[in-house]
Amino acid sequence: MSVKIIAVGKTKQNFVAEAENEYLKRLSAYCTLSVEIVPDVKLTGSNNIEIVKGKEAELLEKRINPQDFIVILDERGEQFTSPVFSQILEKKLTAGNICFIIGGVYGLADSVKKKANLMLGFSKFTFTHQIIRILLLEQLYRAYTIMKGKKYHY
Amino acid sequence: MSVKIIAVGKTKQNFVAEAENEYLKRLSAYCTLSVEIVPDVKLTGSNNIEIVKGKEAELLEKRINPQDFIVILDERGEQFTSPVFSQILEKKLTAGNICFIIGGVYGLADSVKKKANLMLGFSKFTFTHQIIRILLLEQLYRAYTIMKGKKYHY
Repeated sequence: MSVKIIAVGKTKQNFVAEAENEYLKRLSAYCTLSVEIVPDVKLTGSNNIEIVKGKEAELLEKRINPQDFIVILDERGEQFTSPVFSQILEKKLTAGNICFIIGGVYGLADSVKKKANLMLGFSKFTFTHQIIRILLLEQLYRAYTIMKGKKYHY
Repeated sequence: MSVKIIAVGKTKQNFVAEAENEYLKRLSAYCTLSVEIVPDVKLTGSNNIEIVKGKEAELLEKRINPQDFIVILDERGEQFTSPVFSQILEKKLTAGNICFIIGGVYGLADSVKKKANLMLGFSKFTFTHQIIRILLLEQLYRAYTIMKGKKYHY
């Protein structure tokens, strides 16, 4: 079973791109993982934040397979320890594919949030939607090392 | 008043070093911030984890000024939202210097933890002590942009 990450907006910061490459390479030993980027919609005179989120939602929804177990990253989502997250991942991957969704600069429209099987929180702190990508990939890598009983090398 | 970060072990991953440079550069517009690294102690045949943490604690304690407001980063520490963390920082900086302490691979000895005026948590998830450096710097930068009423650019 595979893992898909759908994120809004290209990776902008160089250090984020480097971290993504590093963890995607490490994860390739453990799972089939794809990352899909939908373009971010710009905030302009005629696009307020709700319109931006609505347009991004349309792009996201085309890529969401409702049969997947949908995990939406959200500041107010539930937090787990790494071992518990690893167990959740293992259990869900036995049943099917998992799809993680990371919103853009302004977050996700409610229409997308409603599709969540799990709202996952990383921190009460706000981080950029770019840094969250590093955190998710590192945590997926950590989850697989826990599942496989491997020592975590970094 | 100034901010000091004391961390155990050199920055190893290139993306972490890049992120540190980026946020240190941005923070230099807002505050006097210094980063001090104490060497990590290797786990060998004669060094078990408690001995490693004890030796690292000795090195750390030489650099801790007990008059500073000591914030220790810890998985089980208290979590705050970014605006609340910004307020805490502003208040404490009015009174004196702040010192953040980030442990090494095996965490911090209890003798160091006892010095904490605040145990600060970022996530229930475990992250590497390297990635935590990015999270702290980004959050400090975010805190200053909130204090100064600036738009956050990333």
